[in-house]
Amino acid sequence: MLKAPDHQVAGHKADGGNLGPLVDDSGRFYKPLQGNERGSNEVSFYSSFSSDTKVPDHIARFFPKFHGTQLVEASNGSGKQPHLVLEDVTFGRVNPSVMDIKIGSRTWAPQSPQDYIHKCFEKDRTTSSLRLGFRLSGIQIFQSKESGIWKPEKRSSIQSLAADEVKLYLKKFVSSDASTPDSAFASIVYGGSAGILSQLLELKSWFEDQTKYHFYSSSILMMFEKESALDGKRSPRPEIKVIDFAHVFEGEGVIDHNFLGGLSSLIKFLSEILTFPDGCETTIEDGETTSS
Amino acid sequence: MLKAPDHQVAGHKADGGNLGPLVDDSGRFYKPLQGNERGSNEVSFYSSFSSDTKVPDHIARFFPKFHGTQLVEASNGSGKQPHLVLEDVTFGRVNPSVMDIKIGSRTWAPQSPQDYIHKCFEKDRTTSSLRLGFRLSGIQIFQSKESGIWKPEKRSSIQSLAADEVKLYLKKFVSSDASTPDSAFASIVYGGSAGILSQLLELKSWFEDQTKYHFYSSSILMMFEKESALDGKRSPRPEIKVIDFAHVFEGEGVIDHNFLGGLSSLIKFLSEILTFPDGCETTIEDGETTSS
Repeated sequence: MLKAPDHQVAGHKADGGNLGPLVDDSGRFYKPLQGNERGSNEVSFYSSFSSDTKVPDHIARFFPKFHGTQLVEASNGSGKQPHLVLEDVTFGRVNPSVMDIKIGSRTWAPQSPQDYIHKCFEKDRTTSSLRLGFRLSGIQIFQSKESGIWKPEKRSSIQSLAADEVKLYLKKFVSSDASTPDSAFASIVYGGSAGILSQLLELKSWFEDQTKYHFYSSSILMMFEKESALDGKRSPRPEIKVIDFAHVFEGEGVIDHNFLGGLSSLIKFLSEILTFPDGCETTIEDGETTSS
Repeated sequence: MLKAPDHQVAGHKADGGNLGPLVDDSGRFYKPLQGNERGSNEVSFYSSFSSDTKVPDHIARFFPKFHGTQLVEASNGSGKQPHLVLEDVTFGRVNPSVMDIKIGSRTWAPQSPQDYIHKCFEKDRTTSSLRLGFRLSGIQIFQSKESGIWKPEKRSSIQSLAADEVKLYLKKFVSSDASTPDSAFASIVYGGSAGILSQLLELKSWFEDQTKYHFYSSSILMMFEKESALDGKRSPRPEIKVIDFAHVFEGEGVIDHNFLGGLSSLIKFLSEILTFPDGCETTIEDGETTSS
């Protein structure tokens, strides 16, 4: 039995007759294959990457597992359509807080068509990407059993933030209450040997070395469970995943300096929050809180 | 007594009536102030950076020392003109091999004027910058007392190389004879605790942290003395310097992910040469050899 995923914070959604991803109850995520070359590009990437013996296990774990492609009943009732079958990266998580961060100051490859480059160039310039090396692309923050999950009213509102606003969202994400960011859980979510910063640094080491894949317009998902952080009995299970590979290109002997630069910028933001959890704040706009 | 520098491999030159830099016999380099905001921008950078107590000494040594500005007789006989007075970074070196590498896949700042962005964007795209994260901008290689110093016939020919061609130049640079690249001096020039790779890694650590300066269109100079490498009695004195600051902007709390990405890409090239000094070669075009 397939249904729309509960914790999708960015990308195409299965609603209003739109074709969107589906999940099953065994931990698989069905992503509709885009009809153009993006779909085949993403299949190619997963096929190549999942069988690439040079990718060490401690890096492969940051990528969704790949289970081939399959014809399944589409979310919009248009009959059986080809889907990528992937690991559902939020499977088994209760009320996860999730952030989707599109990495790179540039979301287009040098070899992309001119009109596509132009479109992306303008978007990168009018969002945070060009200046920060990444942009927030989606976010949901679990508040509490009573107040549920917080999401921004408009997803587009978080894409064009300045550096201090992005930092505030990154604090909000690990605060006991998003309305007064105290970064209470920064040390157990971002920090520590199993924390998000440590995972990002591991990923960064790989990007300093690998010259096979260039990732344009891919995202890093950051996840954890605030309820566990609040009750203090279980680990909040901080985890990162790299997702969205419709624009991966052959690296041709050069490192992915665009992804690496953006990743290093994100790492600096998190390092600063861990070093100065009570640094200066600015206010951010109101969002919408929905019951979970 | 001022004269044109012997070892300038890129930038404006003092010849044919053009205004160019000058050096004296005490180790100072006189760079004509460009009349537009680039000149004042570079003065601002040197003033700010040279008095910035947050820049540690082991990083400041990678930048030319600044001795203010001064009116000196211009190289083209146009009378006294304002010049930046800087450290002559090749002072005291005999027949140095020098490479000028412009760092960054993007040589323009987001806040630059539209027409300037467009001009740089096209240049970055048609040279190595966009793909490699840097481009070769100038080179001279000392061959031997007999055959003198090798320079490419056209400086522009080295700006648009593919990855394998750039790697070949980086090998040629540290070879006993540039015509058959054996990377003979890779380990004593690029490698070792005082070698160029080690210096670049120190610089990289600073770029992972500093959020004050964004360097667009700046270069890294790599230098060493092959005669010392050949006779084996003295150190070839491998050294890097960061130069050209007409396009430095305030970092506004974000790391310089563009420079860092390009620097990391260059580091990967040198690491590969050190790991596989005899890796596959391609041939490169003939250059011009002049007696030194």
